[in-house]
Amino acid sequence: MRAASEGPELGDAFGRALSDLHAGRPDAIIIERDDGFIEVDSGDYLGGWSDRDAWVLERAPGRVLDVGAGGGRASLVLQERGQDVVALDVSPGAVEVCRRRGLKQVFLGTVADLAASGTEPFDSALMLGNNLGLLGSPERAPDLLAALGAVLRPGGVIVGGCIDPYQTEKPAHLAYHQRNRRIGRMPGQVTIRVRYQRLATNWFDLLWMSLTELGQIAAPAGWRVTSALPGAEYRAVLART
Amino acid sequence: MRAASEGPELGDAFGRALSDLHAGRPDAIIIERDDGFIEVDSGDYLGGWSDRDAWVLERAPGRVLDVGAGGGRASLVLQERGQDVVALDVSPGAVEVCRRRGLKQVFLGTVADLAASGTEPFDSALMLGNNLGLLGSPERAPDLLAALGAVLRPGGVIVGGCIDPYQTEKPAHLAYHQRNRRIGRMPGQVTIRVRYQRLATNWFDLLWMSLTELGQIAAPAGWRVTSALPGAEYRAVLART
Repeated sequence: MRAASEGPELGDAFGRALSDLHAGRPDAIIIERDDGFIEVDSGDYLGGWSDRDAWVLERAPGRVLDVGAGGGRASLVLQERGQDVVALDVSPGAVEVCRRRGLKQVFLGTVADLAASGTEPFDSALMLGNNLGLLGSPERAPDLLAALGAVLRPGGVIVGGCIDPYQTEKPAHLAYHQRNRRIGRMPGQVTIRVRYQRLATNWFDLLWMSLTELGQIAAPAGWRVTSALPGAEYRAVLART
Repeated sequence: MRAASEGPELGDAFGRALSDLHAGRPDAIIIERDDGFIEVDSGDYLGGWSDRDAWVLERAPGRVLDVGAGGGRASLVLQERGQDVVALDVSPGAVEVCRRRGLKQVFLGTVADLAASGTEPFDSALMLGNNLGLLGSPERAPDLLAALGAVLRPGGVIVGGCIDPYQTEKPAHLAYHQRNRRIGRMPGQVTIRVRYQRLATNWFDLLWMSLTELGQIAAPAGWRVTSALPGAEYRAVLART
């Protein structure tokens, strides 16, 4: 009775979603975890601004690299304030939306790609929208921290937000933490993909860390947390030790 | 880097969703189609009522079988009006929610199960919430229509709603129709599963038909459309020919 399942098509699910959203055709962005847990992404990618995000922006001075810029909501605010901003994302659709929304400087690729391409040094790396999770895993975090170090001037800072994985009571999340411990991963390392209509991204890892864990991950690369707004979705500033 | 994917757990995803919703812990119900298309189910399972649904209820006289009762929103209205109602669903969680919400008569199983169990004849079979789609496929529709015929008294009616698959411009849906035609299925036959948090139902088929196609599917089983409210989500009354 059932046709052979073809499954989702591999592609820029996130970028397509942003592009549709920007064009006034919003549809649900869905996050699928590798244990089958599925949820709707409630991120407000084009606008919306909290006091806690404002706290972060105030701590992102000078020339700013917006890492994982998405729809460019943070970059646009900074650009309007007269700051020199580069909106970076690995999603072609996201970068295109940033451009269409008026961002003057965009970069399609990773921070390592940007470092390799040669760039003027930045004063701040901005990782809002829980983008500190892009550190990915204890194994991969040093590479991203090194790339950030390469594009930031010596006194530069990393400012952003992250989910504290321990501030949940959801049984599915607690079970995932347990599974992670069993297989030797940090409890908050999640393997997910973005799904949008027929598209799915590749699976990728995000690393949800408590503030303490963030400090532990950052220290070997020469970074430390200098100030923070605690909470289930905390905000933090990192400076070189 | 990635742990072996375990995927979703097979279970009563829909019933768990309704149960959480009833308990004041709503979370997104997600529908996944076998071509990878994914969307949020916007159904209002506990309440919410449109004029078009009211039109259907007015045409469901006497003793009513609510087929695919879900959270029991239709059954509750009819029971409050003093009608004799049986809320039927294959989801244990849905049936439990119906019971907790005060429905006096519930049945866990299919219409064929109910027919086999012996029941007083019904005056109306109610298939709101696009539940005429439960006809499933041209191959399976005769079985459900026969089971409905077995539990309805001779003058009984089938009243409900269905999606007209042709009233869309979504490229992903039009491509799915084309794929269906290519493999010999009706354009509007969709193979889907419900996903909720870590749970997924089995894959099952729904049949979205134009009003004309509904008439063609129903005719061999001895039913005809006697009145309808046209539209992308139409409502219809079927009576025996």
